[in-house]
Parts: sequence; structure tokens; C-alpha cells
Amino acid sequence: MIEERIRATVRDVPDFPKPGIVFKDITPVLLDAALCREISAYLKEYYSTRQIDLVLGVESRGFFFGLRLANDLNVPFAPVRKKGKLPASTIGVKYDLEYGEAEIEMHDDVVKPRMKVLIHDDLLATGGTAEAAAKLVEMQGGEVVGFDFLVELGFLNGREILSPYCQNIHNLAAWK
Amino acid sequence: MIEERIRATVRDVPDFPKPGIVFKDITPVLLDAALCREISAYLKEYYSTRQIDLVLGVESRGFFFGLRLANDLNVPFAPVRKKGKLPASTIGVKYDLEYGEAEIEMHDDVVKPRMKVLIHDDLLATGGTAEAAAKLVEMQGGEVVGFDFLVELGFLNGREILSPYCQNIHNLAAWK
Repeated sequence: MIEERIRATVRDVPDFPKPGIVFKDITPVLLDAALCREISAYLKEYYSTRQIDLVLGVESRGFFFGLRLANDLNVPFAPVRKKGKLPASTIGVKYDLEYGEAEIEMHDDVVKPRMKVLIHDDLLATGGTAEAAAKLVEMQGGEVVGFDFLVELGFLNGREILSPYCQNIHNLAAWK
Repeated sequence: MIEERIRATVRDVPDFPKPGIVFKDITPVLLDAALCREISAYLKEYYSTRQIDLVLGVESRGFFFGLRLANDLNVPFAPVRKKGKLPASTIGVKYDLEYGEAEIEMHDDVVKPRMKVLIHDDLLATGGTAEAAAKLVEMQGGEVVGFDFLVELGFLNGREILSPYCQNIHNLAAWK
């Protein structure tokens, strides 16, 4: 089962990015080409019957599987990046971090009104970044039709912050 | 022809990241799912007869096509990232920028002695980052068997800095 394989492959790194945090490191998944192909095949199948017009991949681990998913669904892909990384005209939204705030951006010529947008990232933790991406979509008149994560850390309750934007919150592997 | 299509799709953004620089923006390529699939199919075919044990993707635009290429070749993929981004034990190398210096890292349990490594990024400019990635490979006893770029800016002569590490420097689209 794909969930068990992902759970067995993701690596716990204690005290990253700071003491007391156990970081779920997905890079061992990337070393396993067969598992990666299965993940991509699973996602293609899972989303094939849903109407999606655009996949957004959140910087930067959302780039790994996000582009291929968009390619497999035959829809455009666009990156959501930290402020200052995208070269052309952008729209941005600030969001709170534990200390201070951050800002993410996307190019402002991508989301068209009523576009159905899937937001993809590698990991759902507290949900702050994915929520900011959802705000970017809605500010431009798009519709968030799903949040997709490789891994969800359920104990951080990110689902609660995202569900007002869209109830479709999908993971391939979860820790309760 | 794939080169002409990439050249026609990449967008020039003047004065990014600073005045006087014309930035080659590949994000319009990512919006074109058919072109992305052709790029991935081309790369799979191009590298299918070459012996490659590992693909390294350079942060962060090297993540877009790098993982899929590794998956298609049935070999591991690993990210090369800016200092402090990778959670587990890393090996790093510093390199000079126009002003000051930068450092890139990779996890230190990936490259094994005599492994044949392909280094992938979206764009070859002056070659400083790709050279640093090559140094990381060689420091661990690996062998750089190719540098792969979506786009090469020939007028910046990045090829000259990379050719001592490996003569196989491939692009899908070049500006002379």
C-alpha cells in the first residue's frame, strides 16, 4: 500500500529546523524512483475525474510532484514562491509565522476568473502557507477545488485552517 | 522543433534581479503541459543510453524537470539546496557570487564512490552553482557524467567553467 511505503520511507530528523521539532524529511522518497513513479501514477488516477484547470506548486518541495501532476492532467502549472523570487509582475499575500510574518507570491497573469485550482505541497503542517496560496487564488477570482499533500501531520490541525477554502484536502500519507 | 518552442515560450524579464539584467523566465514553459511532456520525453530518450546512477536537481528550478528525469531513468534523485534548507547531515561547498559568496549543500548519505552523477538545473548562466554542485559530487568520490540544462546562455561562457569537470554539457535551448 502506497501510504505504508511513504510512511516507511519518510525520515524523522530531530531538532530541525529548531530544537524540539521532529522534521519529516521527504528526500528519501525522492531516492526511490519506483515509489516516486507510483506516487505520480496514483495522483494522476486520483485527480483524473476531477475538473482542475491549474495546479499550483508551493515553493519549493511542492515543485517535485506538482509539475508532473499538472503535466499528467494536461493543465498548466505555476509556482508559488517566497517574495522576490518570481521575475515578472506578481500578486502577493502576507501570512503570520510563529515569529514575524512571511509573504508568498505568484505571477499575476496565471489565475483567471472562475479557474479551478489545485494547490499542491509536500507537507501539510499548520497550513499557513497553503492558506496563503488559497488567498492568492481567491484574490484573483479563482476557485480552490483541492489541497493536495504528500504527507499530512494531522496533530497540527492544518485541515481546520484550510477547510473554509475547500473541503477537498488530500494526502498520500498521514501521521495522526 | 523543441528548441524553437522553448525559445518562443521563455519570457524575457528586463531588470531582474537587478537593473541591466534581462532574466530568462522559464515559468511560461510550465504553463504549457504539452511542451513540458515533450521536454520530459526528449530528456528520457536522450539519456536512456547513457549510464547514470543519480540525478541531482539544483534548487529550486532544477526540481521541476529533474525529479521526473530521474524517475524516467529509474535512478535516485536528490536536491542540492542552499545552506540550511536540508534537514539531515549535509556536505557543503562555498562559491563566489558577484558580491560575496554563497553555499550549497546536499545530504551526505547520497553520493557513493564512483557513482555516475548527472547535474540538472533550469538554466546555465555563469556556471558557478553547477560548478559547486560538481565539487560536491567529486568531494564524495562520485563522477560527474553530465550537466543538463533546459536553457543555456552561451554569451556568459558557463561552459568554460564546467568543462574541466565533464565535457557533456547539454541544453534544450540556447541563446548564443
